[in-house]
Amino acid sequence: MSASTTEGTSAPTRSLSASQKYEIITQNLAEVLGGDAMKATLEERDLVAYWGTAPTGRPHLGYFVPLAKLADFITAGVEVKILLADVHAFLDNLKAPLELVQARAEYYRLLISSVFRSLHLSLDQVKFVVGSSYQYSAEYNLDKYKLTSITSEHDARKAGAEVVKQVSSPLLSGLLYPLLQALDEEYLGVDFQFGGVDQRKIFTYAELYLPKLGYKKRSHLMNSMVPGLSGGKMSSSDPNSKIDFLDTPAQVKTKIQKAHCAPGEVEGNGVLAFIRNVVIPIGKLMSGQGRASERAWADSDDVVFTIKGDPKHGGQARRFASADDLEEAYAANEIHPGDLKIAAVQAINALLKPIQDDFSGSEAFKTAEAKAYPPEVKATKPKKEKKFTPKPEHLKTPEEKARDAAAAAAAAAAAGGAEAETGKASGVESTGDLKQALDAVAN
Amino acid sequence: MSASTTEGTSAPTRSLSASQKYEIITQNLAEVLGGDAMKATLEERDLVAYWGTAPTGRPHLGYFVPLAKLADFITAGVEVKILLADVHAFLDNLKAPLELVQARAEYYRLLISSVFRSLHLSLDQVKFVVGSSYQYSAEYNLDKYKLTSITSEHDARKAGAEVVKQVSSPLLSGLLYPLLQALDEEYLGVDFQFGGVDQRKIFTYAELYLPKLGYKKRSHLMNSMVPGLSGGKMSSSDPNSKIDFLDTPAQVKTKIQKAHCAPGEVEGNGVLAFIRNVVIPIGKLMSGQGRASERAWADSDDVVFTIKGDPKHGGQARRFASADDLEEAYAANEIHPGDLKIAAVQAINALLKPIQDDFSGSEAFKTAEAKAYPPEVKATKPKKEKKFTPKPEHLKTPEEKARDAAAAAAAAAAAGGAEAETGKASGVESTGDLKQALDAVAN
Repeated sequence: MSASTTEGTSAPTRSLSASQKYEIITQNLAEVLGGDAMKATLEERDLVAYWGTAPTGRPHLGYFVPLAKLADFITAGVEVKILLADVHAFLDNLKAPLELVQARAEYYRLLISSVFRSLHLSLDQVKFVVGSSYQYSAEYNLDKYKLTSITSEHDARKAGAEVVKQVSSPLLSGLLYPLLQALDEEYLGVDFQFGGVDQRKIFTYAELYLPKLGYKKRSHLMNSMVPGLSGGKMSSSDPNSKIDFLDTPAQVKTKIQKAHCAPGEVEGNGVLAFIRNVVIPIGKLMSGQGRASERAWADSDDVVFTIKGDPKHGGQARRFASADDLEEAYAANEIHPGDLKIAAVQAINALLKPIQDDFSGSEAFKTAEAKAYPPEVKATKPKKEKKFTPKPEHLKTPEEKARDAAAAAAAAAAAGGAEAETGKASGVESTGDLKQALDAVAN
Repeated sequence: MSASTTEGTSAPTRSLSASQKYEIITQNLAEVLGGDAMKATLEERDLVAYWGTAPTGRPHLGYFVPLAKLADFITAGVEVKILLADVHAFLDNLKAPLELVQARAEYYRLLISSVFRSLHLSLDQVKFVVGSSYQYSAEYNLDKYKLTSITSEHDARKAGAEVVKQVSSPLLSGLLYPLLQALDEEYLGVDFQFGGVDQRKIFTYAELYLPKLGYKKRSHLMNSMVPGLSGGKMSSSDPNSKIDFLDTPAQVKTKIQKAHCAPGEVEGNGVLAFIRNVVIPIGKLMSGQGRASERAWADSDDVVFTIKGDPKHGGQARRFASADDLEEAYAANEIHPGDLKIAAVQAINALLKPIQDDFSGSEAFKTAEAKAYPPEVKATKPKKEKKFTPKPEHLKTPEEKARDAAAAAAAAAAAGGAEAETGKASGVESTGDLKQALDAVAN
């Protein structure tokens, strides 16, 4: 089973040494806690990892950021457990019936599977686990009770500080959040958990408290936070801030063209961040697979990104050997934002195409999507309801906000896909939505 | 099934009208919330009630206070569900293995059954429910998650204010406490919950939040708080402050003689309070059963309590028709504390005798007691351990405190029964112990 004993087999993974695997597993990360433990285990066997996502709103292009990193894990022989955190999702959005959340978990599963297939990664190493399959068990709940009896409100609040909305009186569900996430590591039987750096305090909580229950302390790998395509946080109230996996090439083009992308500004530039964190890593992965020619965003074997300057902006083709090179050129105003956007649109559509082909060819996939996100029934309001006072924005549930945003978007523009998103999806700034969701329930 | 349709049967309960039942159910209480709902239901059928106790320390004489009130419920045809809250007990005292808590639950069950038998009450209307039998279920936990997502830390803290130790950063288990207690009403399927007035905020929390989950709002009946026999709160560190159900007549006498009982002082007088809340109600119950002559504490049919004044205190026999009369006479210094104590000792021993006979005659009862409270093994410390620094008092677990208190008591005096007690037992001030227990875990 271990890579060292099967060296020389046809699978490329198996020919990697422990240190090579460690290198791939930890590349491009913001922080690694417990790297030595991982190295020691890698000498014995391959690792098991956990990444969690709460299946609430429609998964958007931002999900490519953690998924591109999961691709590294798979390449390095890691067994990846993807927690479809339906219990959390339900909690974040009490108005959504449990069946709807479960339908969404299925859509997430099919979509993430399709993303991995599009990257020519074997799904043998990927295991989807639905949270409710174990989070209601007696053992899990006894452990949760134990954690509550040794965790002070202060420590729970501190642990969730960057994930759960900080108000003077948080909801108890927000306080429980870090405890559940710590226990998941034990119940999923993993060596490390992966998430965004916003998860850091939850991760250190888990490192401190799991051993108090007699469980192993896990390692923690963290992505840096990546801004939304339109800069800043992706917002559920701004449908143009996120691109749906099923958006058409024309929709993608429209949204990217509207995206905030100030000339020469690298910090908070969602387009550049997406290229650095998704497009370039996937390009490298493809090169490693001998599919360099399939990279629509790089027209030469030795570059990671190409910008075909538009002559009308006075540009000409620029080829970059690294993300740093690209950002340096952009900072120096050598790249016109319009040219960058055109290149980004081309890359995004190339990434989406195989997934959309998968979707079009699969009745199961289409059915799951329809069940997970049934079209809004827009009732024609009878006259007598005219007097109805709209619910104030701060009192709306995330679903209500999403519904209203969708209705507004549908009315105002042709672009679709304006769904709310909430929940656990680490390494990409969708936490703003989780905060909004918790806040909406709190207020 | 309803009392009104079976009127005239031999069982005395069945001959009571709905309003008579309501009168008995609510007599001698400090407060009733939701009385109208109970009255309405009583017109249709008999009621179902819930009283909870956490099986941790040895049940002491203070338990007679709520149990004497439960006797009223049984008399009035109420089905009484006694929650043996093992999950809570375990949480309050993580150092006690779950098997020990379960053994204690069994001892509590046998002891409470014996108390009811000693009062000639049928156990047909009493149902014991062990908390873990349903508190780990998926449904219960989903509901608990729902409650956490609509309950702020502020409201949870407020609800537990008089039951859970108030510190700047409470443990999460303390915050969850009111939520669990609210859900228990639904899961036990009761019409009302009974407890001490210290439970009031938990009860009003339940009234407000159960309907938010779509569940019925329950009625709440509250006992006033009764001080310990030695005045003030019963303390686990003072073995003389509480009398064990298995204490010998001589031990009872010794403890009562040491009890604080200031001349003329009614307020905080544990001896008087016990007579008012236990001895006199049980005497009335016996009279109603046609067993007035068996009341060792009243030598005449028309009185509730008799004090045979000791001639050496210059006293003579005084007979009282009510608790008020007794307290009035005591306040006027017409009763010598020594005479009151002698009468109390006689009453307590009379109450304990049938229970102790039950215990002596039952191998199952004796085995349960031995399993629940195994004798402390006192290891002789080897010389080299002399350097061991004792754990500071505030860091000790309740069990450690109890063990040390027991060891100290055993060394210092002959009197036994020095066990810690914690947990849920309403209507008697054992909450001090729960606070200590939570505090001990917190610090």
